[in-house]
Amino acid sequence: MPKVALVIGSKNDFEAVKPAREILKKFGVEVETRVISAHRTPRSAADFAENAAENGFEVIIAAAGKAAHLAGVLASLTPLPVVGIPVKSSTLDGLDSLLSVVQMPSGIPVACVAINGSENAGLLAVQILSLKYPEFTAKIIDYKKSLAEKIANDDRRLQEEIGE
Amino acid sequence: MPKVALVIGSKNDFEAVKPAREILKKFGVEVETRVISAHRTPRSAADFAENAAENGFEVIIAAAGKAAHLAGVLASLTPLPVVGIPVKSSTLDGLDSLLSVVQMPSGIPVACVAINGSENAGLLAVQILSLKYPEFTAKIIDYKKSLAEKIANDDRRLQEEIGE
Amino acid sequence: MPKVALVIGSKNDFEAVKPAREILKKFGVEVETRVISAHRTPRSAADFAENAAENGFEVIIAAAGKAAHLAGVLASLTPLPVVGIPVKSSTLDGLDSLLSVVQMPSGIPVACVAINGSENAGLLAVQILSLKYPEFTAKIIDYKKSLAEKIANDDRRLQEEIGE
Amino acid sequence: MPKVALVIGSKNDFEAVKPAREILKKFGVEVETRVISAHRTPRSAADFAENAAENGFEVIIAAAGKAAHLAGVLASLTPLPVVGIPVKSSTLDGLDSLLSVVQMPSGIPVACVAINGSENAGLLAVQILSLKYPEFTAKIIDYKKSLAEKIANDDRRLQEEIGE
Amino acid sequence: MPKVALVIGSKNDFEAVKPAREILKKFGVEVETRVISAHRTPRSAADFAENAAENGFEVIIAAAGKAAHLAGVLASLTPLPVVGIPVKSSTLDGLDSLLSVVQMPSGIPVACVAINGSENAGLLAVQILSLKYPEFTAKIIDYKKSLAEKIANDDRRLQEEIGE
Amino acid sequence: MPKVALVIGSKNDFEAVKPAREILKKFGVEVETRVISAHRTPRSAADFAENAAENGFEVIIAAAGKAAHLAGVLASLTPLPVVGIPVKSSTLDGLDSLLSVVQMPSGIPVACVAINGSENAGLLAVQILSLKYPEFTAKIIDYKKSLAEKIANDDRRLQEEIGE
Amino acid sequence: MPKVALVIGSKNDFEAVKPAREILKKFGVEVETRVISAHRTPRSAADFAENAAENGFEVIIAAAGKAAHLAGVLASLTPLPVVGIPVKSSTLDGLDSLLSVVQMPSGIPVACVAINGSENAGLLAVQILSLKYPEFTAKIIDYKKSLAEKIANDDRRLQEEIGE
Amino acid sequence: MPKVALVIGSKNDFEAVKPAREILKKFGVEVETRVISAHRTPRSAADFAENAAENGFEVIIAAAGKAAHLAGVLASLTPLPVVGIPVKSSTLDGLDSLLSVVQMPSGIPVACVAINGSENAGLLAVQILSLKYPEFTAKIIDYKKSLAEKIANDDRRLQEEIGE
Repeated sequence: MPKVALVIGSKNDFEAVKPAREILKKFGVEVETRVISAHRTPRSAADFAENAAENGFEVIIAAAGKAAHLAGVLASLTPLPVVGIPVKSSTLDGLDSLLSVVQMPSGIPVACVAINGSENAGLLAVQILSLKYPEFTAKIIDYKKSLAEKIANDDRRLQEEIGE
Repeated sequence: MPKVALVIGSKNDFEAVKPAREILKKFGVEVETRVISAHRTPRSAADFAENAAENGFEVIIAAAGKAAHLAGVLASLTPLPVVGIPVKSSTLDGLDSLLSVVQMPSGIPVACVAINGSENAGLLAVQILSLKYPEFTAKIIDYKKSLAEKIANDDRRLQEEIGE
Repeated sequence: MPKVALVIGSKNDFEAVKPAREILKKFGVEVETRVISAHRTPRSAADFAENAAENGFEVIIAAAGKAAHLAGVLASLTPLPVVGIPVKSSTLDGLDSLLSVVQMPSGIPVACVAINGSENAGLLAVQILSLKYPEFTAKIIDYKKSLAEKIANDDRRLQEEIGE
Repeated sequence: MPKVALVIGSKNDFEAVKPAREILKKFGVEVETRVISAHRTPRSAADFAENAAENGFEVIIAAAGKAAHLAGVLASLTPLPVVGIPVKSSTLDGLDSLLSVVQMPSGIPVACVAINGSENAGLLAVQILSLKYPEFTAKIIDYKKSLAEKIANDDRRLQEEIGE
Repeated sequence: MPKVALVIGSKNDFEAVKPAREILKKFGVEVETRVISAHRTPRSAADFAENAAENGFEVIIAAAGKAAHLAGVLASLTPLPVVGIPVKSSTLDGLDSLLSVVQMPSGIPVACVAINGSENAGLLAVQILSLKYPEFTAKIIDYKKSLAEKIANDDRRLQEEIGE
Repeated sequence: MPKVALVIGSKNDFEAVKPAREILKKFGVEVETRVISAHRTPRSAADFAENAAENGFEVIIAAAGKAAHLAGVLASLTPLPVVGIPVKSSTLDGLDSLLSVVQMPSGIPVACVAINGSENAGLLAVQILSLKYPEFTAKIIDYKKSLAEKIANDDRRLQEEIGE
Repeated sequence: MPKVALVIGSKNDFEAVKPAREILKKFGVEVETRVISAHRTPRSAADFAENAAENGFEVIIAAAGKAAHLAGVLASLTPLPVVGIPVKSSTLDGLDSLLSVVQMPSGIPVACVAINGSENAGLLAVQILSLKYPEFTAKIIDYKKSLAEKIANDDRRLQEEIGE
Repeated sequence: MPKVALVIGSKNDFEAVKPAREILKKFGVEVETRVISAHRTPRSAADFAENAAENGFEVIIAAAGKAAHLAGVLASLTPLPVVGIPVKSSTLDGLDSLLSVVQMPSGIPVACVAINGSENAGLLAVQILSLKYPEFTAKIIDYKKSLAEKIANDDRRLQEEIGE
């Protein structure tokens, strides 16, 4: 069973990443959720990243707010793909987090998703895992179908409701 | 040999994505560079995305500017991971491209890199491929080492130059 | 009776577009409200757009939030004029939606209105229809008169209230 | 022959709107290009807008920069559809122009295109005219085909050039 | 008694401009508050502005939100100084209003104050009037003194409260 | 002859304010141009502002860039109306200057014009002076007429040039 | 006992700076909290800054919102290091405050912390004091350890709670 | 002789930080300029920061662009005060750098100066050092005097040049 690390910079960010955890579990991916701060526990962050591959992780998801360095710091110390979730903070509506996660310099990529886009972070991890675990491909296709069906149902229901 | 699609919305964007192509080739990844526009050739874009997996692609990289829908449109029609490069355009310094690529709604992730961050898009594709092709892992580690050595050399040289 | 399609990317956006629907009905335009997602039901979106003219629509209004590609995707597949409504989402106050709708590349225009500007989207559709259905011209002039009268009444009433 | 007014707030903006004029002529639309300033010649602007329909115009395109009120001012005095082009100015990269054109209050819509998006403004005018002049519909479809062919050619040529 | 016009684009903006009215009355300036919309009652706006000087106004204050053209439209038709108040609207936190008011083109100045800065709009009007009515100068100096005293009192009281 | 102070925070800003000086001279206003820095010569700035009225100035125009405090600092120490010009600096395109000038707290207004809007700063000063010096009113009306004529001429000439 | 001045532009800002005061007291630094306004009490601000060093202060912390000139004004009149806290105001989410504090011109630095970052302002003052008072160094190290332990505890507790 | 570390994330940033180095040398501070990348040489960065105090540094200045994590990463591993310089990069005009440097989370402050504000970074370091090395205080006062004199000279010279 493939394993993904879901790292948050503060326990307060747990609510924001729950959808990532749920989607990963739904797809049958093992998740290990960790609270590790790039700024407050930099050595733990470094150790975690350096040993992540050896410890069986295949993708890392990192979520942080404001000057959100967590994803970049982890990415600098692991060959694994790192998905970054910019978390909306109390000011600037997440723009600071977004730019701090996405504008990485050449050489150290982070795969950034939308502000608070934690469901997509989980899905992206599954898509990445699908290269090695082809059984996920069918599941992703099914998941997308279920999204499409939901939209189609909403379409029907709306038209019934409003009589168009 | 793993294969990555590098899709640009206009031939003018080729300069901007060259570093992605170079890094992929350097890592021994086959690249197919395509000009397909989400807006001008929507049916080709759809066909391309729907058949990408079957055609042997394992990752798609898409680069576009302004209301940059290309990555999102491809992502909506393939289970493959899609990396998006927001291309800086003639106005707004790439902010429009960035937001159009990164702010994807739940269900359809795009792995967004920095504005004009095409080298990182290539590297991220390699990191994703490394799950299935473990030989890339060592290469990524080597590549990061070479970056580190370059910095260390620059450090030494600068200090020699300025005599500190 | 002229017919306008009012397409939303998610049922949640229905509240935001109600004023468009109301103004269209008020002017005697037939509205068909549809839930179709550029990202979750891309093939339906394509089919809808390709057949819209044949199905009797004369203008399409599309509303979506975040990386709001819906209007652009529909516009890419129809010769009809497409009006885009950027919907304010949970972050960035609608700036992402606005730029994703308005910054369309050359060749595929979208007629963008204000963030959450759905009443204006409806009015714009009526103005467009008025080219073919000249009876709308007088109605638009009347509508503008009623707006002007409301302002004039507000002016009088305010001065009575505050005694100036 | 249908007639469109192309109004610019200053003669300096003529370069920026040339593509609108060219596309309109290419589609066989009569264009009248006018220099009228919302701020410097407000009475002319009002007279122009009030008489535009009577003078045979069917769509108005207005281009201005900075606090770009021209499109809004014209829209307030005509029942015709008004297309607004935000022109990039010497500061703020056109963001001021964009917000001044697109954020119109309820009741007075402007159909805003991208910053400096004058080709699209012309195309949008043609799409609007096509409701009354159905011969434009086929031309628009042809024009879109030519765009698609250009992309397809660019795709082929790029692959020949780089040997992929 | 000098007379200032306080013009709002919609009755809803009255709350936002009350502080302007209060400060003007406090300084003994006659205020006439008007609801006149640049977009919904353009002819009234033009007439008001053209006759404002003749009607005894010496300064005009105009408040509006979104694509806030009111101050600019009035300024284009009067030689009087026009003070603009950008009103914070439901999206974009007033940035659209600010840029629409302040970024006026050469030739037609508007004296812009802060977003929702209506007290300052009133004070600025008094400062302008003080050129002709020198009795205001002493009152302005007194008013500033009272502000300074309030700060000094707050300083003392805070230190008492927290015992520093 | 009325006298206006034109204060710049650095000699480098002189180019940016020349149009203010020219317009003032053109209207027959005496201008005294001063280099005084809110940050580097704070005591001179304070002395200048405190004595400005006594020294015969009737309006102060202040231009500065970046964290542009000059206008606010002068305004805090004089009862005279202060016009602020945000000067575009080497980064952020003048947005920092604009917000530092316009977002003044209640009690101390600054009349802000557009970024680099120095011609308008001069005109606004003339409009303010016209309250006391009614001879300026006719000159302002003439000046606006000349602007309108220039636009009308540009309109004619453009149509001759392009044959419309 | 070293002494830090904590200056706020209005009594309303006291809540926002409480964390600065608490952290300073926790580290055994004497704090004097003052309400002094750059705009409403400019002479007091100047006197305070000019005498701050003589009065035994070693660092000044200044917090203000909107066109937040307080830190810059104090910095212009003292050789002491000045830490600036941009306070989030009712509009623009603190961006105006941030740019007004951080974008200081060459010659007069302000040490800017995050929007509403008052705890960090206090910590930075302690770090600065630690140069002269080496006993703070160990306390800072301990404080950082306590932050790290809190994160480590949160990490353990989260994993217990969610059973990972 | 006090010692300051001037750390840049890439040799390309050397030009941008030269003014910091010059001002430090001018004040008689020993500078050690280092190229260390938070992302490419994260372990060196950590080692450097952890040993900085022991190695005799008293202040660290760190300059980086884009997702500029360098200052934050160093700050997380040293009790020394860290001054951050956001470097303007090829896109977004330095806004990304600014937000990545200044928006640090509670517990780990960075003293942020203006975008490309490297002279001020040097001055701020000197001001910080002046707590321990009081001889700098007089030098800072002298330096400020020289700035004031330069402004006063510019003032005189400008008035001579333009004859006011």
